[in-house]
Amino acid sequence: MSFDKELEQKVRETEEIVRSYLPIEEGYQKTVVEAMNYSILAGGKRLRPMLAGETYRMFGGTGKLVEPFMAAIEMVHTYSLIHDDLPCMDNDEYRRGRKTAHVVYGEGMAVLAGDGLLNFAFETALKVFSLAKKEEEIKRAADALVVFAEKAGIYGMIGGQTADIEAENKKEEVTQEKLLFIHEHKTAALIQSSMMTGAILAGASEEERKWIGKCAYNIGIAFQIQDDILDVTGSLEALGKQTGSDEKNRKTTYVTLKGLEQAKKDVDALSKEAIAIISSFRNRNIFLEGLIRYLITREK
Amino acid sequence: MSFDKELEQKVRETEEIVRSYLPIEEGYQKTVVEAMNYSILAGGKRLRPMLAGETYRMFGGTGKLVEPFMAAIEMVHTYSLIHDDLPCMDNDEYRRGRKTAHVVYGEGMAVLAGDGLLNFAFETALKVFSLAKKEEEIKRAADALVVFAEKAGIYGMIGGQTADIEAENKKEEVTQEKLLFIHEHKTAALIQSSMMTGAILAGASEEERKWIGKCAYNIGIAFQIQDDILDVTGSLEALGKQTGSDEKNRKTTYVTLKGLEQAKKDVDALSKEAIAIISSFRNRNIFLEGLIRYLITREK
Repeated sequence: MSFDKELEQKVRETEEIVRSYLPIEEGYQKTVVEAMNYSILAGGKRLRPMLAGETYRMFGGTGKLVEPFMAAIEMVHTYSLIHDDLPCMDNDEYRRGRKTAHVVYGEGMAVLAGDGLLNFAFETALKVFSLAKKEEEIKRAADALVVFAEKAGIYGMIGGQTADIEAENKKEEVTQEKLLFIHEHKTAALIQSSMMTGAILAGASEEERKWIGKCAYNIGIAFQIQDDILDVTGSLEALGKQTGSDEKNRKTTYVTLKGLEQAKKDVDALSKEAIAIISSFRNRNIFLEGLIRYLITREK
Repeated sequence: MSFDKELEQKVRETEEIVRSYLPIEEGYQKTVVEAMNYSILAGGKRLRPMLAGETYRMFGGTGKLVEPFMAAIEMVHTYSLIHDDLPCMDNDEYRRGRKTAHVVYGEGMAVLAGDGLLNFAFETALKVFSLAKKEEEIKRAADALVVFAEKAGIYGMIGGQTADIEAENKKEEVTQEKLLFIHEHKTAALIQSSMMTGAILAGASEEERKWIGKCAYNIGIAFQIQDDILDVTGSLEALGKQTGSDEKNRKTTYVTLKGLEQAKKDVDALSKEAIAIISSFRNRNIFLEGLIRYLITREK
């Protein structure tokens, strides 16, 4: 099967898993649940849960142990978008062509829907305990929960959000160190969460977990640099948004700091290293290797 | 020792435990951590963590296993206050005589501080796994986490918040069933979280967990009805706020629905039943019994 065909099929399978964990819209709390599901069902390719599932398989994981985490990671990603879009944050009225949660449900309900999704992400991930039977599985589940929580919080995604907001508000010089901090925490952290929880649940060793963390770091950083590159080089049609917008906003990006040529070289190096790591384990997952290439070398 | 003296000492001890779990204000994410700690250190009597600790002791719990949950429950309570105070929610500029988080740090940062605290509550509760050694303790920790997560989310506190906001916005008739739903979820759920996680971690049986849940439900509901009663009868000085404010806002309360006399009778009945339950177990905790009386029969 071609990579494109296989990707299509995996997107469908992952979508089904995510949907199977969504809360039911009923009771006096119905509205907040509607707002949560509305936001999650706005779609996307479910790449984070897919990375979790594929890393789990690569390390020999079988059965459904990883599934609660797959759904939970998508919930964390979605809650962060709801809160990002709020008027007091990025003030976005549309996302993927659909009105954002606060436009449809009001700001107060959008705050609650984000809170509800973050909390429900943990409720969902904790369902792993009703699947884990052996003592070894319970220990892995506990380890995975710890990584999952850390990568979403102030030492992960929320930390990156904080630095990003401050960089935008203060308009002070953004150093390369700070820019890498933002990319690492705002973007790479959830990719690390996905791949590391998958690896841990399948029984990866301490050493293997670290390598997977490094691989996911590379994917996240390369993905973001590629975003900066496409802002400069991408065509309007391919990207679906005005290019050169970073320059117009005088935003410091990897490209303004290091130049276009160096940025391209760095994406290439990060990408090669990520693939080298993922193909170095006992078992290989050819689809996962393709998925990583697809993520980094996209042209839009 | 008198109850008042003992309470004073327990407040100090609980405060110390909560503070020992606060995150360090450093790194590029420093501002969000400052906003989180600013809000938590606004104080209060730490009654929820105290209830967790005392219920744990009552069921024979020893050591520190309950402490991560004590801190985590206070974090959940505090994050809910930060988000409640936002302009798009209750729009409160002061709480306990201090400026609220969004006034000091801006709205965007207050949203992130709330998110950060909710996430950090789970990070903190998960520290139980570095304390739990025996297989039995690990299982109890997992059970406690499940209850902790559920009582904070759409089937707990966030569910109550949703119904409360809708009742205020829509100005539609609030039935007794809906009012009890709001009180149960918005207030009783976190008291249940406190007492049930304490009981579970100490090894309480299924049957005992249920009774503790019922006891905590009664405390939460009685506490809220007492609030409604004090709004009508309390003196301005004792309560520190304008009384009769519910009536002025035409808010449906337990008192407007059932009348002052019946409301007082119901508080009395709920309170008596709560004390009857808590004093029915093999081991008693006289301080906990006093604490429950103190919570319900307060005059301010």
